[in-house]
Amino acid sequence: MQTVREVAERARHAARELRVLTRDQKDEALRAIAQRLKAEKDFIAQENSKDVDAAKADGTSAAIIDRLTLDASRIEAIADSLLDVAALPDPVGEVIRGYTLPNGLQVRQIRVPLGVVGMIYEARPNVTVDAAGLCLKSGNAALLRGSSSALNTNIALVDVMRKALADVGITTDAIAIVPGTTHESVNELMRARGLVDVLIPRGGASLIQNVVNNSLVPVIETGVGNCHVYVDKDADLDMAVKIVMNSKTQRVSVCNAAETLLVHQDIAEQFLPLLLREFKERDVTVHADSAMAEYAQKAGAAWEPVTDEDWAAEYYSMDIAAGVVPDVAAAVEHILSWTSGHTEAIVSNNAAAIAYFTASMDSAAVMVNASTRFTDGGEFGFGAEIGISTQKLHARGPMALTELTTSTFIVTGSGHVRE
Amino acid sequence: MQTVREVAERARHAARELRVLTRDQKDEALRAIAQRLKAEKDFIAQENSKDVDAAKADGTSAAIIDRLTLDASRIEAIADSLLDVAALPDPVGEVIRGYTLPNGLQVRQIRVPLGVVGMIYEARPNVTVDAAGLCLKSGNAALLRGSSSALNTNIALVDVMRKALADVGITTDAIAIVPGTTHESVNELMRARGLVDVLIPRGGASLIQNVVNNSLVPVIETGVGNCHVYVDKDADLDMAVKIVMNSKTQRVSVCNAAETLLVHQDIAEQFLPLLLREFKERDVTVHADSAMAEYAQKAGAAWEPVTDEDWAAEYYSMDIAAGVVPDVAAAVEHILSWTSGHTEAIVSNNAAAIAYFTASMDSAAVMVNASTRFTDGGEFGFGAEIGISTQKLHARGPMALTELTTSTFIVTGSGHVRE
Repeated sequence: MQTVREVAERARHAARELRVLTRDQKDEALRAIAQRLKAEKDFIAQENSKDVDAAKADGTSAAIIDRLTLDASRIEAIADSLLDVAALPDPVGEVIRGYTLPNGLQVRQIRVPLGVVGMIYEARPNVTVDAAGLCLKSGNAALLRGSSSALNTNIALVDVMRKALADVGITTDAIAIVPGTTHESVNELMRARGLVDVLIPRGGASLIQNVVNNSLVPVIETGVGNCHVYVDKDADLDMAVKIVMNSKTQRVSVCNAAETLLVHQDIAEQFLPLLLREFKERDVTVHADSAMAEYAQKAGAAWEPVTDEDWAAEYYSMDIAAGVVPDVAAAVEHILSWTSGHTEAIVSNNAAAIAYFTASMDSAAVMVNASTRFTDGGEFGFGAEIGISTQKLHARGPMALTELTTSTFIVTGSGHVRE
Repeated sequence: MQTVREVAERARHAARELRVLTRDQKDEALRAIAQRLKAEKDFIAQENSKDVDAAKADGTSAAIIDRLTLDASRIEAIADSLLDVAALPDPVGEVIRGYTLPNGLQVRQIRVPLGVVGMIYEARPNVTVDAAGLCLKSGNAALLRGSSSALNTNIALVDVMRKALADVGITTDAIAIVPGTTHESVNELMRARGLVDVLIPRGGASLIQNVVNNSLVPVIETGVGNCHVYVDKDADLDMAVKIVMNSKTQRVSVCNAAETLLVHQDIAEQFLPLLLREFKERDVTVHADSAMAEYAQKAGAAWEPVTDEDWAAEYYSMDIAAGVVPDVAAAVEHILSWTSGHTEAIVSNNAAAIAYFTASMDSAAVMVNASTRFTDGGEFGFGAEIGISTQKLHARGPMALTELTTSTFIVTGSGHVRE
């Protein structure tokens, strides 16, 4: 078996070839991959069933089995998403800034590929194809390190994708699986500074923290979401109920679901009975401060006293931390103290409150009279998503093709020297 | 004395105030600081002389003593540079992307401050004021960790700047010195993830590598420059001599000076005698491959056989590694193997060679018929510079105000929820 370093070196070499491909060449490759995936869907499903059977034998939960399973229609959908990526504009070559200096030097800052992108992720085989497709479109080599529980599936998917690359005359090293299924192979990947340009971990908080804390390769931190909804005194009550319910309950297992609710004291008495009735109906447990607890008690909603752990929690469940605040400034103060910096929402018709809230937040996204659930590459119209960055450097919020590029200054003179 | 963490927490709190300042408020503060620095230049010079005297007593080199020294005219110049920063546009609030989605959601991605910026640097007191000014203009709190050999100077400069902040009603925690003069205080700063948003090390390679390898706070790597000049077969000979000489010799101690020369074999016989005569005159030592060595020998230029260490070296001296290559592809291959990714130059009048070279390079800047010495924030017209990034994430090449910001998506709806 090749070492992680050897595979990374091959990817590095492939990246030199990928960076000069035209958009036509890359789109042709994406279409060829989509076609091959569809043509070999029986083979892929068969390899996938080995992983699924092993997971079942291990007593894996039904939810994870479901995420792991690839049937014919899912493979078709994954392949079709590559055609969507092919239809997107090529980020490479875009002129970010361009001007001529007083001395005649022409400065152009243009987008170029990062080079080698490493993905570390859990048992979602669609990430294997999505990430490979986005990396290819943006001119990057992809090093894929999925869960060992999806290894047969991932090997099959990458084999099929590499055959398609060979068909169109692109180096097969453009898409590769990181060899090894132990933590040591992840460690080797994290030490490959200079060979790998960026690592993007996707999955649970412990996976992400391990990569952030231990990688020598630059990391883009993704997906940790303790999202807040603040209902202002000047909120439309029905709108506020709708937005809180959608933010909390539409899908609880995702990073853009709301985990904390803050309500202005002046509106609490009218608003909370309406909301708590909905909470009760959807079996939402309220982790309540003392003012909130009184309303929950009266409404007969499930509640517990809130703790600091609750204010910090990402429940990924039908739980919500909730409190009553004296004003928007107190809401801002609370959020700045506890947020993970993903998405915060304000429901208000008061322009001053909205302006103060949006200017004060220090998060990837701020929703005004909209659900936190909209922070998403697809919803933002990016056409694809490689993850949601919750860090401040390089990319913040939903990441797609643009965020898989860096830039180079091309400076053209006619014998210019510095005096 | 306060701990590093306490100072960082105060800076974090100050950042909340700074992010909502208007441009007018920030520019007024910059002008107030400039005025105070000028008014207290005798005090600053007096404090600086303590550092200079101690450095002299320690037998510090004249070059470093010179960098450390602040006289009245230098303080005036440093203060004036803040007036230049005040005249620059405010990067905060710039709309990077803005559009309305089919469902009516209005998406705006706007520039916001990073928050708390930590600078770790060597004995250049001007960095103390430059960094504080750029951070203030971009709405960031500045945590400054200069060399202990400049401590009296830096304390005096920061005291004066903080007095000026107080005069205009801005929190003095916006500009702070990291307490402590030991490595442990740098270590504490590198562990302050969550309090400090980015660390920018400026100085020698070992300082930068220490921060890159050990920081939990995200780092922007700066300034390592093994820059190459490639002279193509279709180069204008006089232009090539001028560009090589300027790149190598105009200022040898800087990261954008050239360290390696590659010459196309078809032009070597005409070109190298002209160039080597200049090298001889300026006492440049050529670390030559065998073909280059013959020309150096004939020209009577100082030369030594080139080693792998030479190809990798940043000499910061009148030395250059040099070789003859069969074609532009070989030059590209050599540069990709050895470069630190700072700046590479091609001298050529051949459009195909230029296109191939610029598309293949994987560096922050590529110069076409211009000296490598132009990779510089001032030369690029940025009006200021906080450093030159040689990494790919977030910022690449000269960094100024824009690079001290991140972004937030502000999404405005009218009760939008996801279906």
